[in-house]
Amino acid sequence: MKLATVRDGSPDGSLAVVSTDLRRAVKATGTANTLLAALEQWDRAEPRLREIAEALQSGSLAGEFDIGSVNLGPPLPRTWQWLDGSAFHSHGVLMQRAFKHDYLDGGPPRVLMYQGGSDDFLGPHEDMPVPSEADGIDFEAELAVVVDRVPMGTPAAAALEHVKLVMIANDASLRSHAVSEMKTGFGWIHAKPATSFSPVAVTPDELGSAWRDGRVSLPMQVFWNGREFGRPSAGAMGFGFHELIAHAAYSRNLSAGTIIGSGTISNDEYRTVGSACIAERRAIEIADGGYPLTEYMRFGDRVRIEMLDADGNSVFGAIDQRIVPARR
Amino acid sequence: MKLATVRDGSPDGSLAVVSTDLRRAVKATGTANTLLAALEQWDRAEPRLREIAEALQSGSLAGEFDIGSVNLGPPLPRTWQWLDGSAFHSHGVLMQRAFKHDYLDGGPPRVLMYQGGSDDFLGPHEDMPVPSEADGIDFEAELAVVVDRVPMGTPAAAALEHVKLVMIANDASLRSHAVSEMKTGFGWIHAKPATSFSPVAVTPDELGSAWRDGRVSLPMQVFWNGREFGRPSAGAMGFGFHELIAHAAYSRNLSAGTIIGSGTISNDEYRTVGSACIAERRAIEIADGGYPLTEYMRFGDRVRIEMLDADGNSVFGAIDQRIVPARR
Repeated sequence: MKLATVRDGSPDGSLAVVSTDLRRAVKATGTANTLLAALEQWDRAEPRLREIAEALQSGSLAGEFDIGSVNLGPPLPRTWQWLDGSAFHSHGVLMQRAFKHDYLDGGPPRVLMYQGGSDDFLGPHEDMPVPSEADGIDFEAELAVVVDRVPMGTPAAAALEHVKLVMIANDASLRSHAVSEMKTGFGWIHAKPATSFSPVAVTPDELGSAWRDGRVSLPMQVFWNGREFGRPSAGAMGFGFHELIAHAAYSRNLSAGTIIGSGTISNDEYRTVGSACIAERRAIEIADGGYPLTEYMRFGDRVRIEMLDADGNSVFGAIDQRIVPARR
Repeated sequence: MKLATVRDGSPDGSLAVVSTDLRRAVKATGTANTLLAALEQWDRAEPRLREIAEALQSGSLAGEFDIGSVNLGPPLPRTWQWLDGSAFHSHGVLMQRAFKHDYLDGGPPRVLMYQGGSDDFLGPHEDMPVPSEADGIDFEAELAVVVDRVPMGTPAAAALEHVKLVMIANDASLRSHAVSEMKTGFGWIHAKPATSFSPVAVTPDELGSAWRDGRVSLPMQVFWNGREFGRPSAGAMGFGFHELIAHAAYSRNLSAGTIIGSGTISNDEYRTVGSACIAERRAIEIADGGYPLTEYMRFGDRVRIEMLDADGNSVFGAIDQRIVPARR
């Protein structure tokens, strides 16, 4: 099942069920007006949403519309919590080396996680406003899962049953602020503008055998101004989503609708598959030649992030958005 | 005007208007069912809530009840964003020295801020569940303000007009995880269980002349198991709330209902006024004798946090809560 949210002027938008080929949709009005409301009573909402999805797949439905005819928001325009991990070890190793921030103190890999703003997400084709080009504008292509309520203390072995939806995130960063904010130890505020999400969120069964061990074993395609920048596999997570969820829930309950991110996708084979953020490419350039060659994004630049299944079909639709100056 | 939220089984509870002496209250049903809803349309809701407050002050109202007869939640049981600063310089200096984490790199004081969980707050008298006594359980007495929508880029000079409410927070910490999570640079996840808030949130005019320069110049009384632990003045903030709000809004819009915290209250005169968290007292002990003497909290311990006005009246009511083991 694939779900999307149509911008309608309300903060949470209108929930819609989308056909597998991402072309047609129908509002879920009557079952759940918003995705957040559906997640808060998922056991009741899911079977009814699946009935709509099956009816939409098997023929045309009253009220159905062309997905291209509406303004798509992110599947969750806002939610109660957004916790983003950093689960790809090759990314961590490259970033630590380049920016001389040894947060592992030489110890074994550990789950890294920060809390980001969850009150004001961007849709897949919405412009991303940023204060200044001097902020060091970067994209970060990630996977994210949406959970129902996870009680405090839930172990990793019981965490995957809470994963209700999967989507793509562009966890954009303003790199000029990232290292100095890391040094405070308090995490990122200035370095994290609004996160953007793919057109649809899908139930894990839509991923077939690519969904295993709490990971999605498919490449993430990243294009910057129309040129391929990277296509690392999301299957290379050093920790699976079940481990990230258990980490998040150690000393807190996670409300239904909490989003857990994978961190920037990265592979050990970064020289052949490329990277999913500019900072990682710059880290490789620093390692190779002592200084970075690739500049960060400029106003007007576009990033496109998409994941295709084994048959070449888009799973989540594409994030394809432009960087614009914030109105002051 | 003083506002509270009554637990009623729903996630956001029921908004109530409370008498100035904190004894009587009446539900705001009809005007706004929840505080979050009121904040999202504050210009319309505030005058009507003030009419209720004035009627309640001038005599008994139909539907009024004794505040002691209901279960009080936090004024906002959940909200879209909770950003906590660290605005008291004496606290920062003591903590840096004791824990050898020089996040200022010797530079001038800067605004420090982390994002905390905002989906599952605790009321003033609700037990605080914690996984283990080995987590290093600490209270942190703070002030916090609630804002309406703050557009990205709002400068400090225009930020105070967005402050709609003020309240007390117990931004509890699990210190065994705090320093290692700071070293990651990603901020705190394990170290931050649910934050608790005072019985009421008040409009700034309730503070009279104590509300100036984006600060509340009154002492915060902190009791641990019935013994006074500290009474530092909240007026000593190195940065005012207007500066914290502007910092928070540099690269993001803040949704209505966003809570901004002051960080642990601390005064240069900590030897006479004491501290508002255990870690700061331990830092002083380390500075004095090389090692800490005061242990962290045990299950069953209570913390009480209250602020009295110049006439000795409780402004927000008291947080008075017990630490309990989390059910696993």
